[in-house]
Amino acid sequence: MRSTMMRYPLVLPRALERAETLYADREIVSRLGDRSLHRYGYGAMAGRARRLADALRKAGLKPGERVGTLMWNHHIHLEAYFGIPGAGGVMHTLNLRLQPDELAFIASHAGDRVLIVDDVLLPLARQFVERTGIEKVVVARISDEPTPDGYEDYESFIADGDPAQPLFEPEDEFTPSSICYTSGTTGRPKGVAYSHRALMLHAMCLGMKDGWDLGQTDAAMPIVPMFHVNAWNFPYASTLVGAKQVLPGPHLDPESLLDLMAGEGVSITGAVPTIWFAVVDALRAEPGRWALPPGMRVIVGGASPPPALLRALDSLGTVPIHGWGMTETTAGATMAHVKPEMADWPRERVLDLFTERHLPVPLVEVRVVGDEGEAPWDGAAMGELQIRAPWVAAGYHDAPGSEDRWTDDETGSGGGDGWFRTGDVANIDAAGFVKICDRTRDLVKSGGEWISSQDLENAIMGHPDVKEAAVIALPHPKWGERPLACVVPRAGAKIDAEDLAARLAAEFPKWWLPDAYEFIDEVPKTSTGKVQKTALRERYADWRWEG
Amino acid sequence: MRSTMMRYPLVLPRALERAETLYADREIVSRLGDRSLHRYGYGAMAGRARRLADALRKAGLKPGERVGTLMWNHHIHLEAYFGIPGAGGVMHTLNLRLQPDELAFIASHAGDRVLIVDDVLLPLARQFVERTGIEKVVVARISDEPTPDGYEDYESFIADGDPAQPLFEPEDEFTPSSICYTSGTTGRPKGVAYSHRALMLHAMCLGMKDGWDLGQTDAAMPIVPMFHVNAWNFPYASTLVGAKQVLPGPHLDPESLLDLMAGEGVSITGAVPTIWFAVVDALRAEPGRWALPPGMRVIVGGASPPPALLRALDSLGTVPIHGWGMTETTAGATMAHVKPEMADWPRERVLDLFTERHLPVPLVEVRVVGDEGEAPWDGAAMGELQIRAPWVAAGYHDAPGSEDRWTDDETGSGGGDGWFRTGDVANIDAAGFVKICDRTRDLVKSGGEWISSQDLENAIMGHPDVKEAAVIALPHPKWGERPLACVVPRAGAKIDAEDLAARLAAEFPKWWLPDAYEFIDEVPKTSTGKVQKTALRERYADWRWEG
Repeated sequence: MRSTMMRYPLVLPRALERAETLYADREIVSRLGDRSLHRYGYGAMAGRARRLADALRKAGLKPGERVGTLMWNHHIHLEAYFGIPGAGGVMHTLNLRLQPDELAFIASHAGDRVLIVDDVLLPLARQFVERTGIEKVVVARISDEPTPDGYEDYESFIADGDPAQPLFEPEDEFTPSSICYTSGTTGRPKGVAYSHRALMLHAMCLGMKDGWDLGQTDAAMPIVPMFHVNAWNFPYASTLVGAKQVLPGPHLDPESLLDLMAGEGVSITGAVPTIWFAVVDALRAEPGRWALPPGMRVIVGGASPPPALLRALDSLGTVPIHGWGMTETTAGATMAHVKPEMADWPRERVLDLFTERHLPVPLVEVRVVGDEGEAPWDGAAMGELQIRAPWVAAGYHDAPGSEDRWTDDETGSGGGDGWFRTGDVANIDAAGFVKICDRTRDLVKSGGEWISSQDLENAIMGHPDVKEAAVIALPHPKWGERPLACVVPRAGAKIDAEDLAARLAAEFPKWWLPDAYEFIDEVPKTSTGKVQKTALRERYADWRWEG
Repeated sequence: MRSTMMRYPLVLPRALERAETLYADREIVSRLGDRSLHRYGYGAMAGRARRLADALRKAGLKPGERVGTLMWNHHIHLEAYFGIPGAGGVMHTLNLRLQPDELAFIASHAGDRVLIVDDVLLPLARQFVERTGIEKVVVARISDEPTPDGYEDYESFIADGDPAQPLFEPEDEFTPSSICYTSGTTGRPKGVAYSHRALMLHAMCLGMKDGWDLGQTDAAMPIVPMFHVNAWNFPYASTLVGAKQVLPGPHLDPESLLDLMAGEGVSITGAVPTIWFAVVDALRAEPGRWALPPGMRVIVGGASPPPALLRALDSLGTVPIHGWGMTETTAGATMAHVKPEMADWPRERVLDLFTERHLPVPLVEVRVVGDEGEAPWDGAAMGELQIRAPWVAAGYHDAPGSEDRWTDDETGSGGGDGWFRTGDVANIDAAGFVKICDRTRDLVKSGGEWISSQDLENAIMGHPDVKEAAVIALPHPKWGERPLACVVPRAGAKIDAEDLAARLAAEFPKWWLPDAYEFIDEVPKTSTGKVQKTALRERYADWRWEG
């Protein structure tokens, strides 16, 4: 017996068509380079995305070929999100914060043939394009400057495209539509190639009440860059449900962001903690200047926020939702949601829980595997977090030797479809809340026991005069490794190391306490805002412990 | 280039596993035959579903073979929802309101090998089982009576099953998991075989804000029978998100339902209009007896509700959500949602719109095709509603000759994957709201023009003394067809036909007005509560128009 259901593939053109027919006038608002706001509806956006698709085909792009984007978050980037896969191409979002050498490597490795680049980013593009196989550069103008000679202007490029031509329809929903390289604090960056199916399913998940509860009435502002894991899938999910989109362009200062939130009625937004620290500071510095939309959901991801940040966001009338995900998990895989039995918990207790623990969203499976196999869900037993879902990577693009990031296949379906080994150390409590304790390589192993650098950092950042902190493991002749705390004081503040040590002693076992405190100007970060502990370890490579 | 995403199939065991690990104690509450309430959590439910799966395998069930269920809505039926596909079987939900002849035909046509039946329904089962290929009858006890001799008791049957045995894992998510026959007001009933994929995707859709917004914090009560289109997918969607489930068993009187709503904190429930009429009457008859959970979403489906019903539900503090769907669309395909631009509409205007119009939910495509091809979205041009989605049928099980229910394939994917022709006549307005004007066969074609019997019925039912109404087309020597209004007055009320005619004259063109009014005791209905116009047409087959 066979089922009688349609073999209806889950492909991105369905999301675009739905938005352009049901939500033709629903706005997409973009802040351009000159700070002006560009506005149009899904109808116009879709028409231009279709033009782009046809223009790319006419320019010779073949199905499966890669088109790079080097752009901020704005409407043209959104058109590329649909126009490139709509031509059968694979969109390769290039991280504009990377060094030219890294961009040259990534664009070559992915095999990009065309590049669409913001005019304001041309100086960066010029530093790597010639070292790649990119044959054509199309320039999106978001400033007042004319397009330099020798480059094709995006507007004239898509003018040749016929919006009446049908979009590319993959027969197989596993066909790739975009690729993103991991920021890779170690080793070469590796490419994760997303399929139409994975992005559509993840978009549905974000539309679920137990995902982001994203719907047509929302106004969604991804501050997280569109070159980073498809902006956590904000663009595809928003289009699928017809939400208004607010795209901040290159202006990521807190004042510009707050102007958009208040002015455009943003109901859901997402960014890394660094952005939210700045936003909270700006709000506190000028109380009353911005009227934030009440109940605005603030997705905090990309790095672990200290408890004080969630409390500050909560006290400002927003609803902070901390999530966890990776490039390999199409972003959001666990989300901070209140379970029914927590309904009468005081808010403070909920926020404390959410700082460290989140629930897997529907269709995401998690487990923790330690030295002795799968760890019990007891909130204590630590091991590597492993994950499975329809939107989790089963491999990297053209990266032989990386197979050890997946477990042996125990689903029986073959092809490396086991569990993805996240490299994060975690535990799961009895209610199913996952706590990421640390990156495997960030744990401190002292005398054979693990110390969580993240727990120490959060406690140090609880000190009112501390702006940021990073705890790193340094080699120790007796204990193997011992923790060093690198602390950034707030501007003008003076911190006493003994005072810090006393705070930590009240909270942690004695052998967890950092053996030394270094006061530094800033914590080094990767291009995506993640703390770069390798840089700190290098700085203190010659460290000698006293005593 | 290939995508690097997992080939992770969408199959029902994933929903069950999620509920049993994350929501082991979340309650499933069932009203049994003796009115007592049975309670347990997803952990216990899943264990018993696993036992059932293994017991069915031990009893010789092979993958793809059918197991019938003849049961009310309760926990054992829910166990069958997971246990039968968990054995690799296909659950065939039998409609307990059908006649024994129809049940014999359907169970034979589907090829049911095993039947799980409520003890209280054994008298019905005895009337058809011997005429089918059913080899084994397992009796679920929901009354105080012992299981009669000669039948296997469900409890002893599953006691032989080992809950540690893994559930059946289809490699192909298109594998069938359940089958349901259309109630078929014309012709033989036809079977729609749902796939794991279709049910999982539709469950995700119901979890979306723009679907039912179903989540872990909800308490969901399907009053719509579990034998009818998988109770509109309430059971699978609720399990996927870990919602509390409240199952009313055989007690569908309004008092019993209201006791459950108030007592169990039901936040979302669904039933046909007939049920809601009775519930509204009961609430009005005894104001203050029940404290309904504030904001309870009331899904109204299966038939078109008159405006007065939605207004009554709204005024009682619930949120009525009228939806439309069919057996062939895995139920809910369009849903009454407020679009952003309607945010400041008065509630009255919204309810008026929702009475007739609804938006397609995410991933559902609609179009209206008239004699001259696809009709414009202008809110006027009528034609047949056609639909596509991952959870829409592409055919019927073993029903040669039914291919004309699908259009030619224009997706290029072959295999009859065109659009499903619903047989409903509809128009779509510029905002994308679909109005079902009538069943094709219920339209009145007078002098070459269409008259919507449904619009007339709604207007007649707006009369305070009218309980129900059905308008049918009868042959007319001059006009081809003319409308006859069959009207059921409220108890004790006396209605003047001229008064009715005057009301309609204010609202419709003269040629739409019924040529005669018949006052009848009740409107004949099918087993699923749908108005059976064929029966009325037969009753008036000898009708002669006056003058």
